[in-house]
Amino acid sequence: MDELLKPLIEGNRRALSRAITLVESTRADHRQRAVALLAELPKKQALRIGLSGTPGVGKSTFIEAFGTMLTEQGLRVAVLAVDPSSTRSGGSILGDKTRMETLSRNPRAFIRPTPSSAELGGVARRTRESIRLCEAAGYDVILIETVGVGQSETLVAEMSDLFVLLLAPAGGDELQGVKRGIMEMADLILVNKADGDLLPTARRTVADYAGALRLLRKRPQDPEGFPKAMAVSAATGDGLDKAWAEMTALADWRREHGHFEANRAAQERQWFMAELRAGLLSQLDQPQAQAHLARLGDDVAQGKLAPGMAATRMLDLLGQMSQE
Amino acid sequence: MDELLKPLIEGNRRALSRAITLVESTRADHRQRAVALLAELPKKQALRIGLSGTPGVGKSTFIEAFGTMLTEQGLRVAVLAVDPSSTRSGGSILGDKTRMETLSRNPRAFIRPTPSSAELGGVARRTRESIRLCEAAGYDVILIETVGVGQSETLVAEMSDLFVLLLAPAGGDELQGVKRGIMEMADLILVNKADGDLLPTARRTVADYAGALRLLRKRPQDPEGFPKAMAVSAATGDGLDKAWAEMTALADWRREHGHFEANRAAQERQWFMAELRAGLLSQLDQPQAQAHLARLGDDVAQGKLAPGMAATRMLDLLGQMSQE
Repeated sequence: MDELLKPLIEGNRRALSRAITLVESTRADHRQRAVALLAELPKKQALRIGLSGTPGVGKSTFIEAFGTMLTEQGLRVAVLAVDPSSTRSGGSILGDKTRMETLSRNPRAFIRPTPSSAELGGVARRTRESIRLCEAAGYDVILIETVGVGQSETLVAEMSDLFVLLLAPAGGDELQGVKRGIMEMADLILVNKADGDLLPTARRTVADYAGALRLLRKRPQDPEGFPKAMAVSAATGDGLDKAWAEMTALADWRREHGHFEANRAAQERQWFMAELRAGLLSQLDQPQAQAHLARLGDDVAQGKLAPGMAATRMLDLLGQMSQE
Repeated sequence: MDELLKPLIEGNRRALSRAITLVESTRADHRQRAVALLAELPKKQALRIGLSGTPGVGKSTFIEAFGTMLTEQGLRVAVLAVDPSSTRSGGSILGDKTRMETLSRNPRAFIRPTPSSAELGGVARRTRESIRLCEAAGYDVILIETVGVGQSETLVAEMSDLFVLLLAPAGGDELQGVKRGIMEMADLILVNKADGDLLPTARRTVADYAGALRLLRKRPQDPEGFPKAMAVSAATGDGLDKAWAEMTALADWRREHGHFEANRAAQERQWFMAELRAGLLSQLDQPQAQAHLARLGDDVAQGKLAPGMAATRMLDLLGQMSQE
């Protein structure tokens, strides 16, 4: 049994941090230990909520207020991030903790800053595994936040039980700024900043999105009235309790009707296939393979060797290497 | 030497058709023969023009008129298609040949209907290989057409020397309908249907796109004035000769400045890596592997096995299988 397992299950935050650092590592021995640790985890379930919002919609303020509200109800809340931009810049410039000062000091909350990682696939693996670690550590709600860029929203939706889209109040023309594919993933659209001067605009935006959501095809995993659009204000706290009530109602309905477990099972299968593909492709990362790759790649670029033939030769070389 | 090689090089259309059917096949022995044939091809170069246009912009009419004009100049023209929708529907409902009746009867033209294929990656491989076959058969210009859906435009741009975007005349508001990423790939934007009542609208659309193109960052592979927007009419033929002149001028400039060959070399490297990844992942297609996959996948879905552990076991099983 891994030495981290017991303190992790007991809810020790330092053990959780260390376990996440372990799953983030790409070192072969760390990876082996991480896989073994993950296989030992008890089957505890948290509610996994994917949360997407572009910069400027007040995502940090929302998580701060929403997370604090949940902890006041006695719930333990973990916040993880999937931020593809940080994979380029090598980590957030401002750590996630400084963005959420109150929540980060809350003993019932755990915030993990976005790791720097080479590519989105690596971030996805690390986040899926961190979710499992947070569940095992007894967290009740896991918020997986992402900025709405590229494939990150799809990735987050694929590891969440519910997917929430956080938007700012906007004129009707900007409605088309949200891609149809993202709308189709959303279970709940929250229009933030519904306070003060922006309140009427926020209400109109909610009505616009509610109209747009009605045009989408009904999904089997949705009860009557979902997906839904609502107004909230992270600044005043208005609507946050109602948003949480809608989330739990939706999750309960899905549990009762078998969709919750079916979705989790499908996600676990996806995860398995993703790990397997990553494992197969990682054969190319070995130094010996890299040397062959560079040589064959040069031959291909210079037109000395056809790409398909070069691939066949490389596959033969990999086969020989695995038998050595 | 493959029996298809000689007639193919001599420009025999039946040999070319059979060779493309060979590269489209997924049968293991066919694949092996295809890889060997591709490695034997002489190094002839055609101008590879990627052409994207959503349904309704008059793409077939454009290819018909543009292709016919090129053949009248003595050039041999091949038309290939990357249509992701046909991968779902199992082939075009109306064959590409019926869409381009005049061109399909032209002895200097070769039109290959979209194949039905399981997935976009398969279509990409087949198209790259078909391009090489058409070049070896002596075609001077290869039009690789795609509908603007999903990743297909990126795929086509990655196998072309020039990328042309065909658009319909439209109000300024619709300009944002073209994604920024697609705009950034375009070398030439052609606004079609610039005839009759639509002429003023077409001219305004050209001006709008010209303005939008000026806002994009200059790319090293572009001479002064590129990327460019122009009006054409496939129906009347207006502007087609000018569009061709722009394409050849751009290709010539890139050849003189080394960008043409550098781009080809990078594309060949990409192709090699794509083939290699496909080869590694194809280990999972073997019947024995499929049986293991199904069993482990069920264990994962039922929560009996962690996804990472299941992947590790599957990789071990694949290693054992390759040594049997």
